[in-house]
Amino acid sequence: MRVVTLGGGHGLHAMLTALQRLLPDRRLDITAVVTVADDGGSSGRLRREVDGILPPGDLRMALSALSAPDDRGRLWSRTFQHRFTGQGALAGHPVGNVVLIGLTEVLDDPVAALDAAGALLGARGRVLPMACQPLDIVAEVVGVDDDPAAVRTIRGQVAVATTVGQVQSVSLDPADATACPQALEAIAAADVITFGPGSWFTSVLPHVLLPDMRAALAASPAHRLVVLNLAAQMGETEGFSPEQHLEVLAAHAPDVQVDSVLADRSAVALPGRLRTAAERMGSRLDLRDIAVPGTARHDPDRLAAALADVFARLPGPAR
Amino acid sequence: MRVVTLGGGHGLHAMLTALQRLLPDRRLDITAVVTVADDGGSSGRLRREVDGILPPGDLRMALSALSAPDDRGRLWSRTFQHRFTGQGALAGHPVGNVVLIGLTEVLDDPVAALDAAGALLGARGRVLPMACQPLDIVAEVVGVDDDPAAVRTIRGQVAVATTVGQVQSVSLDPADATACPQALEAIAAADVITFGPGSWFTSVLPHVLLPDMRAALAASPAHRLVVLNLAAQMGETEGFSPEQHLEVLAAHAPDVQVDSVLADRSAVALPGRLRTAAERMGSRLDLRDIAVPGTARHDPDRLAAALADVFARLPGPAR
Repeated sequence: MRVVTLGGGHGLHAMLTALQRLLPDRRLDITAVVTVADDGGSSGRLRREVDGILPPGDLRMALSALSAPDDRGRLWSRTFQHRFTGQGALAGHPVGNVVLIGLTEVLDDPVAALDAAGALLGARGRVLPMACQPLDIVAEVVGVDDDPAAVRTIRGQVAVATTVGQVQSVSLDPADATACPQALEAIAAADVITFGPGSWFTSVLPHVLLPDMRAALAASPAHRLVVLNLAAQMGETEGFSPEQHLEVLAAHAPDVQVDSVLADRSAVALPGRLRTAAERMGSRLDLRDIAVPGTARHDPDRLAAALADVFARLPGPAR
Repeated sequence: MRVVTLGGGHGLHAMLTALQRLLPDRRLDITAVVTVADDGGSSGRLRREVDGILPPGDLRMALSALSAPDDRGRLWSRTFQHRFTGQGALAGHPVGNVVLIGLTEVLDDPVAALDAAGALLGARGRVLPMACQPLDIVAEVVGVDDDPAAVRTIRGQVAVATTVGQVQSVSLDPADATACPQALEAIAAADVITFGPGSWFTSVLPHVLLPDMRAALAASPAHRLVVLNLAAQMGETEGFSPEQHLEVLAAHAPDVQVDSVLADRSAVALPGRLRTAAERMGSRLDLRDIAVPGTARHDPDRLAAALADVFARLPGPAR
């Protein structure tokens, strides 16, 4: 079964970790498609230093989540995630971020660089960038000024993710960026495409903001699964209900049909309202226990079990 | 046959490249033992930034010279040698330097880090640091001041290598540093140990300045081969004749018997004088054509052929 997971950051890492847990028992062909709009931390520093590079942080995390469970995979996954110590110019950069930039410079192709890094880690799946050029997220936000109706444009992933206002909509700059061709191919060939969990406006929605990727997502015969977050995110989705997450996705991509929605039972205050919202979109709702109890972290085994049940429902001999 | 090559920088790279050329036809177990006193360039910047790290540059070059001649070895050798572009903090650092530091931080052991990097490059041989702590070279130099007899202490590899004065002697700081145990083991088990080519005071002599390594070199049953430089080096050995290189080595390590000396025919102005100097030390002199004609670069194939002839002379069934 061909699974394409869309996302970025820790949410994508959690999904890939869960999918890995299913690999001993079933054949999954996993492709992670990763946002390339990060402008914070190590990725932001590196973007400002090296012209035209993709922010490597989320790509590195996805590779690490897919690394082989053997000595070599573990060593290189640990090394990729390790942040340089010291007080110098390298301090704080994860080793994998600088390796990805080095490979990209040598191979002059971010996809070839990710494939080479994946081979190093023995990655059980492929990691692709959403686009082959770095992007910026631009949000329309209210509630930043004294006038509660005033709309302000906020630019940059970090600024949007941490805004004190309410995000109304997001877009990408440049608006006419094109998707990574290999990502479009994976979407067209997928059996399942997953959205989330993750920072909703800055890791999940960007995928549907690329015109050619949205068209590919709308046209794909795959089952489209939304995995909701365990908690609203301080800043960009503060105070957002689970159903508001679905509504925002539908508002940004009305032509992308969501087939099912997976949410953690204890993270949904009003399950009836979420079910109604899902059904209005033509989606089936699965409420499961997928968190580490008492935390806002996904439990990889529980998430894997819930995903396995979704996959088992899908038609077709290969599934 | 077990070959231990002592050196650093470009000279060691040339030796390892030549030894690689012999591998299709004979079994060589190659160990490069590398100086760790570099304080210039990328290595110097990194040493100042990260406490206690070994300068990675010469180690990286040696690994690269030993990389496997297949797609993976070539890709990672190229990547290790690639210097980051851009105008930022990474600019100019070879990728391999930062990878070696990352691995050392993760594994907390420079030898394990070098072995892991060697596995990545498919290295056909092992690269070891001379010592597991960074060292500094300190030289006594004359000719820096107006008084030609005034002796001045110059500190640091770059300063010594580029001094306008004449180096009289070198020592290491700290003086009581100990050799890398795995390097001592390799020396004790070696069939051949090579010294040079390379910056004489700053890449070749440092090995005999570590007391326990000098003792191991003196005690080893191996054939000890000196490969002389193709030209005197501006700065540290400016105006040095080939025989002066031998005399300086003998002065710093009188107990280390040199068994043979290999020199390029056209680089030796007065072959009779060099032969006399070699014979006085109990060494055999081989004058061969080992340079790329008209340059001060070794020709890997010619150097390999000359080394093969030295090896063929050695006694013992395994040789």
